[in-house]
Amino acid sequence: MDKELLYLQIAKDIEHQIRTGLLKTGDKLPSIRTIRQERGVSMSTATQAYIELESRGFIESKPQSGFFVTYTKRVLQSPTTTEPVSVHGMEEIEDIIETVYNNRKKCDTILSMGTPSIELLPVAKLNKSVVSALRSLPDSGIGYDLRGNYKLKELIAQRAMMWGGKIDASEIITTAGCMDAIAFSLLSLTKAGDTIIVESPVYYGILQLAKNIGLKVLELPTNSITGIEPDALKKVLKSKKISLCILVSNYNNPYGSCMPDENKKTVVKLLEHYGVPLVEDDEYGEFHFGNKRPSNCKTFDESGNVIWCGSFSKTLAPGYRVGWVSAGKFHEKISRTKSYHSLACNSLAQEAIANFIENSRYDHHLRNLRRTLYNHSLQFLRCITEYFPEDIKVSSPEGGFILWVEMGKKRNALELYDKAVRKKISIAPGRMYTLQNQYNDCFKLSFGMPWSPKIEQGLKTLGKLIHEL
Amino acid sequence: MDKELLYLQIAKDIEHQIRTGLLKTGDKLPSIRTIRQERGVSMSTATQAYIELESRGFIESKPQSGFFVTYTKRVLQSPTTTEPVSVHGMEEIEDIIETVYNNRKKCDTILSMGTPSIELLPVAKLNKSVVSALRSLPDSGIGYDLRGNYKLKELIAQRAMMWGGKIDASEIITTAGCMDAIAFSLLSLTKAGDTIIVESPVYYGILQLAKNIGLKVLELPTNSITGIEPDALKKVLKSKKISLCILVSNYNNPYGSCMPDENKKTVVKLLEHYGVPLVEDDEYGEFHFGNKRPSNCKTFDESGNVIWCGSFSKTLAPGYRVGWVSAGKFHEKISRTKSYHSLACNSLAQEAIANFIENSRYDHHLRNLRRTLYNHSLQFLRCITEYFPEDIKVSSPEGGFILWVEMGKKRNALELYDKAVRKKISIAPGRMYTLQNQYNDCFKLSFGMPWSPKIEQGLKTLGKLIHEL
Repeated sequence: MDKELLYLQIAKDIEHQIRTGLLKTGDKLPSIRTIRQERGVSMSTATQAYIELESRGFIESKPQSGFFVTYTKRVLQSPTTTEPVSVHGMEEIEDIIETVYNNRKKCDTILSMGTPSIELLPVAKLNKSVVSALRSLPDSGIGYDLRGNYKLKELIAQRAMMWGGKIDASEIITTAGCMDAIAFSLLSLTKAGDTIIVESPVYYGILQLAKNIGLKVLELPTNSITGIEPDALKKVLKSKKISLCILVSNYNNPYGSCMPDENKKTVVKLLEHYGVPLVEDDEYGEFHFGNKRPSNCKTFDESGNVIWCGSFSKTLAPGYRVGWVSAGKFHEKISRTKSYHSLACNSLAQEAIANFIENSRYDHHLRNLRRTLYNHSLQFLRCITEYFPEDIKVSSPEGGFILWVEMGKKRNALELYDKAVRKKISIAPGRMYTLQNQYNDCFKLSFGMPWSPKIEQGLKTLGKLIHEL
Repeated sequence: MDKELLYLQIAKDIEHQIRTGLLKTGDKLPSIRTIRQERGVSMSTATQAYIELESRGFIESKPQSGFFVTYTKRVLQSPTTTEPVSVHGMEEIEDIIETVYNNRKKCDTILSMGTPSIELLPVAKLNKSVVSALRSLPDSGIGYDLRGNYKLKELIAQRAMMWGGKIDASEIITTAGCMDAIAFSLLSLTKAGDTIIVESPVYYGILQLAKNIGLKVLELPTNSITGIEPDALKKVLKSKKISLCILVSNYNNPYGSCMPDENKKTVVKLLEHYGVPLVEDDEYGEFHFGNKRPSNCKTFDESGNVIWCGSFSKTLAPGYRVGWVSAGKFHEKISRTKSYHSLACNSLAQEAIANFIENSRYDHHLRNLRRTLYNHSLQFLRCITEYFPEDIKVSSPEGGFILWVEMGKKRNALELYDKAVRKKISIAPGRMYTLQNQYNDCFKLSFGMPWSPKIEQGLKTLGKLIHEL
């Protein structure tokens, strides 16, 4: 058999295994070395076979990780671009949020969390960094750290270079998590009665915070792949007095969208033109499945109008309460608000995280975490393909750990929620993520917990419940 | 010599030593056992001698600590009751605050700090509690602690019984320090444009926070011994719309005042009657020099109108950022504000402090700290008596670690400040503690650092500079 036919034959064999379900979506393929040995072919033939399969969308290579099956029997449709309607109150969503929180205790398959679960976080290694921090800080972290840990700020600034962020350590204000950073930004730049704009669906924490401060929230049309719609944004900016905009530009929670560079540029320019500060919530940017971390809106910020907020709460240690904000031209204002409201952040946690990053533990951990989450995403998409009705739509994010499922108008997610809880499965109804009467047919799934047969069973049950609706 | 004359003779000898300066204010006296042995008298005679000296104000007994010289050659006068005048802006005091912060680096005798210095805090033992907490928390504190550490809340509630506080653990909301607790209270119960009332002088952090939120601040006449004047309070409540009142009822920073129970009761009733919530900042209540911890306003709160705020930032670990608020009838509101603005507090720090308290380390540490600070207060008052001009007035607090010095209208504290900095001594000018054009002749001294000849020298220099003004 000539060399060309040989690699095509290998590709065909593997394709057959995939089509018949012998190899499932998310499964890791044998290494090229193994193929070479098993088939007695050259390295280049084995490689060509995989390239062929990849180009036809059956498999995908992940850096330092190997090849994975990505083929799904049917093409999953993406959710439709949202179009928010009339505004309702906060009361009903508070009820849903509380119900979801309280019911979690009763469930054993939790698909509604907003952070990767502890099993995926590096507890033992982080403990070592805590002990190192007790030793390296002259006062063991007992004293105030009024100006924030400078070493940590330098490391955050260095990491920003990965997405083209030109940020100086002195521009970074450490905060007790990302919500803290967003809250200080809102307190500094808005006043009660002002209107802010957000994506839709939007993380309910933003809605709660805005209401608490007395702000009106305008939800804008959002695409499940590209994020907020620039045209809709322009229209609103032209016609209304807007005080501030908050966006989760990468791997949005809950919608999964990641704004393309073009959209980021356009949105940054637009907001700058209308003098509307942009708070960029970058909680998920590190969770890219591809090789390269996506840019941020901050990457394209030339005037200092973008307030870049992030934290280690999703990637490393939610309980440490360490986040930051690099606030561009609003630095002085937000820095003062932070110190007036809370003086300082936990000294020990800041030093422990700096130590963890310095020792390359953070990058190592992130590589593992991304690989794991990518694999989970494939498993989830496979299960959804297999078990959910044909007509459902689902986001297929290129990062993060969250899926948005749209069931179609005749199915109700709150009804599904109740039925799922009775089967001890916790999901997050879409209605939690808007002030408006919408997303009643949607729900959010998190794949941030260790993959297990129990979770597959949970998704199967969920599929059955959706069929029955 | 008969027994009666014997004890009087001993008392007279010691009185002579004190009057001639052989024994100085703050010096520890020989133990009763030593007196008995040296003089060859009975235990009861030695004891009687000390009781005689104590009743005449020459010495004072401290529990588990012995007898100390308290006599000062001249009686130090207390500062006059304050009478705030017209309101000025925040700008000028921001400048002074910044100058004081920045100049500290240049100084080697720091008498302007707002917390006891690290040397007085139990670093090594607290580190042990951190390591224990890493082990005792199932996730080593990496996970969110959304509801707050319950063990810690129970311990705070138990400790509240010492001042007659009937507080249930479930009523306690943990926060990232006391300012955080006060900020959440203000954000929950006031809106921009509202007026709040405070003592005068008042901790500048309250002024900064209030301005940041857009609140107007009304400073009320305050007595350096008994705190806010109830009559003045009543007059204001009758005539003005007030949204909230903040008081540091015990060992006020910077004035040193401690409200007597009667005043606490009256103030609580008054505010309740006028429907004005009281935020009680109880940062200093644990610093009592006497045997008994003073009551709080919260002790006399029957309607849930008092919002009791505290922290471990002054007593134990400023850098840990652990405080709390027990908000009475405002619990739900403030609890929501806390979780919307910051989600949770640092999990590890809460557990470490709970561990530290549970192992009786906290009470042991507090006993030592109180004894040390009491002794410092005597040393400071002795130095002020010896080195400062006769006509100055100074607070003599029964707890805390702060003194307020009033120099008289012809002397300017900012001028003194500049001269002191040139001698590498850092004090806190009175003007920092008011929005009004007053306290220009006052300054604050902290005795929260280890006593040393260098500090005595600093106070001597300061006295010289005041003489020269």
